[in-house]
Amino acid sequence: MQMLPMGLRVQRKVEQIIRDEMNRVGGQEVLLSSLQPKELWQTAGRWEDLTKDVMYHFKDGSGREVGLGMSHEEPMVSIAGEKPLSYKDLPFALYQIATKFRDEPRAKAGLLRGREFLMKDLYSFHANTEDLNKYYDEVAEAYRTVYKRLDLPAVYTISSGGVFTTEYSHEFQTLTDAGEDTIYLCNKCQLAVNDEVIADFPAVGGSPAGSAGGGPWGCPECHGELETAKAIEVGNIFKLGTKYSKPFNLTYTDADGQSKLVEMGCYGIGVTRTMGAIVETHNDDRGLIWPISVAPYHAHLLDLTRGEGADRVREIQSQLEQAGVEVLVDDRPDVSAGEKLTEADLFGLPFRLVISAKTGENVELKERASGEVELLSIPAAVARIIEAIKFTQ
Amino acid sequence: MQMLPMGLRVQRKVEQIIRDEMNRVGGQEVLLSSLQPKELWQTAGRWEDLTKDVMYHFKDGSGREVGLGMSHEEPMVSIAGEKPLSYKDLPFALYQIATKFRDEPRAKAGLLRGREFLMKDLYSFHANTEDLNKYYDEVAEAYRTVYKRLDLPAVYTISSGGVFTTEYSHEFQTLTDAGEDTIYLCNKCQLAVNDEVIADFPAVGGSPAGSAGGGPWGCPECHGELETAKAIEVGNIFKLGTKYSKPFNLTYTDADGQSKLVEMGCYGIGVTRTMGAIVETHNDDRGLIWPISVAPYHAHLLDLTRGEGADRVREIQSQLEQAGVEVLVDDRPDVSAGEKLTEADLFGLPFRLVISAKTGENVELKERASGEVELLSIPAAVARIIEAIKFTQ
Repeated sequence: MQMLPMGLRVQRKVEQIIRDEMNRVGGQEVLLSSLQPKELWQTAGRWEDLTKDVMYHFKDGSGREVGLGMSHEEPMVSIAGEKPLSYKDLPFALYQIATKFRDEPRAKAGLLRGREFLMKDLYSFHANTEDLNKYYDEVAEAYRTVYKRLDLPAVYTISSGGVFTTEYSHEFQTLTDAGEDTIYLCNKCQLAVNDEVIADFPAVGGSPAGSAGGGPWGCPECHGELETAKAIEVGNIFKLGTKYSKPFNLTYTDADGQSKLVEMGCYGIGVTRTMGAIVETHNDDRGLIWPISVAPYHAHLLDLTRGEGADRVREIQSQLEQAGVEVLVDDRPDVSAGEKLTEADLFGLPFRLVISAKTGENVELKERASGEVELLSIPAAVARIIEAIKFTQ
Repeated sequence: MQMLPMGLRVQRKVEQIIRDEMNRVGGQEVLLSSLQPKELWQTAGRWEDLTKDVMYHFKDGSGREVGLGMSHEEPMVSIAGEKPLSYKDLPFALYQIATKFRDEPRAKAGLLRGREFLMKDLYSFHANTEDLNKYYDEVAEAYRTVYKRLDLPAVYTISSGGVFTTEYSHEFQTLTDAGEDTIYLCNKCQLAVNDEVIADFPAVGGSPAGSAGGGPWGCPECHGELETAKAIEVGNIFKLGTKYSKPFNLTYTDADGQSKLVEMGCYGIGVTRTMGAIVETHNDDRGLIWPISVAPYHAHLLDLTRGEGADRVREIQSQLEQAGVEVLVDDRPDVSAGEKLTEADLFGLPFRLVISAKTGENVELKERASGEVELLSIPAAVARIIEAIKFTQ
């Protein structure tokens, strides 16, 4: 993972939207180590499997075996159990937004599948499964809010527990041909199922669900048909139950003084991959089209006057910045107007403002998404942008 | 490095103060990989030495040799040289605030010397040494602003180049007995020298500088005497010159079309260690005394009424939060007044507000640093805190 200035600005905005919504469901932010001692990961019996698979591991200078965190269940459970818990302490939830490492054989350049990536991982701790189930649905709703704010449609999809659990879990999948996952979507109801678990669902009419080739397949929930689509997994949520609390003996004292195991959930959003999914789904043949909420800057201000419009450029920039609008100014003297306009489209900031010999006292405002162009007075253009940005904050 | 919620709030504030000042000296923020390919680090000949010393290194699943970034000169030079540079592109500066890894034999628990820590590293690129020298002084000034905003005195100290360069460099050293460094301070002028290089300085009067035992030593700059002190290195700045641009062939084309080597500087601040230095220097026998600028919350609001003051607590909290004041509320019903007061001192938030049976319609305001206590009306207390915070923003 390497972020240059523009990408990092996007990343910080995606992070902040996720942070907002995790705080809203009571998550407390922490930051755990990437260097993880073997002993901790042996407690739940994952060290052997994970180090054979995607966990980077090595001996340090003093001979200790160390892994690089590719997930943080073990250290989170360990923190949660530092003090004895009572039923009054539950529920609570801890999360971090941190770099994960995976020794990924299918790693790709770019944002979708890297060996090092940013992830938000939330872990919740409950007195019983009812409370876990309730919180699970709250987090699912928080995720819907996150993806809405990111302008990134993501389908709630039934999936397997992967390496984390043996029950079903849910993924949030963004439909795009750039995706590596295949999901089955009902064309009538909301059902969506990852192909890893489609074989578990009874076929209704047509070919059996999950059978090779064939189709269309009947939706097991309604009379619709299942259609396949390529998708990027941008988030996932799991009910862990007592999978980790048991080996770590993470217990609490209930109202009757009895010791009981804590029930856990965990909830991930791939921050880097989410950025990749935004890029894959927000573009046209001229370039990117950033959603306002995560655009590296809100407006791209182009000076095509070869210098004599410099005062107007400063004035517009200053008015916008005073109102909290982030402006990227392109007043390079040795670059042609055509090149600047093409680059602005490629770059894809939500609003393009142009000052040229033709605009007189006015400024040309172009909305990247709709392509609409208007000649407006400076105050009118500024007001338009401020108004549009307000809704994303 | 493991940050629980309170520590992480402090960390984010320290980060933001550093980010502000780095942006002010034209730094552009990026974020580089921790996983570093051996080949890149062989270019400047550092792989062999560093992997024998503090650089974690291992083979990944496909047999490639990888190191964990403990500094980022190599990848930064590599990014800087991605496009051909002209003299018009210079100077520029890139920085990141990112986790570093060092296989540190003297690692300690806590914030001062860990195997994994947060660091700000800035790298500057110049056409000539004059420009580098000018920028070096600008960054030194930016560092002074950072430490001033952090309320952390740090002495500008002459030091060796360490593993980075063979010239003198400068450290910012915070005086405290918890420090691992020994520095020599003149009691008359501003001179401060790290003991690693004190032997290079000619002795004036008294015993020779750098000799074992003995002293007081004469200041080589004035008629003062050098005194030793323990200190924590919280920042450092280096002139790299062409040390990295040469092996990476990082060149630019000057105004006459000639190809020349880029001159470089690098500038670090240990974010985690700076937090440790703040903790070491901001406490008394009752606990911590957070500077307003980095306190996890500005105010600690204690409800000692056992419930009937709840409305007043909400009102104060809401008035403060609307004005941007961060408030931690302690209204735990089953904790004694004495325990809450003791914990508030230990915690060390800048302002403590107490609602109790004795305060009536008013609120008791205590300033942690001075210990001053006043009984004020709610609006007066709120106004006092807002006023104090304004100066740190």
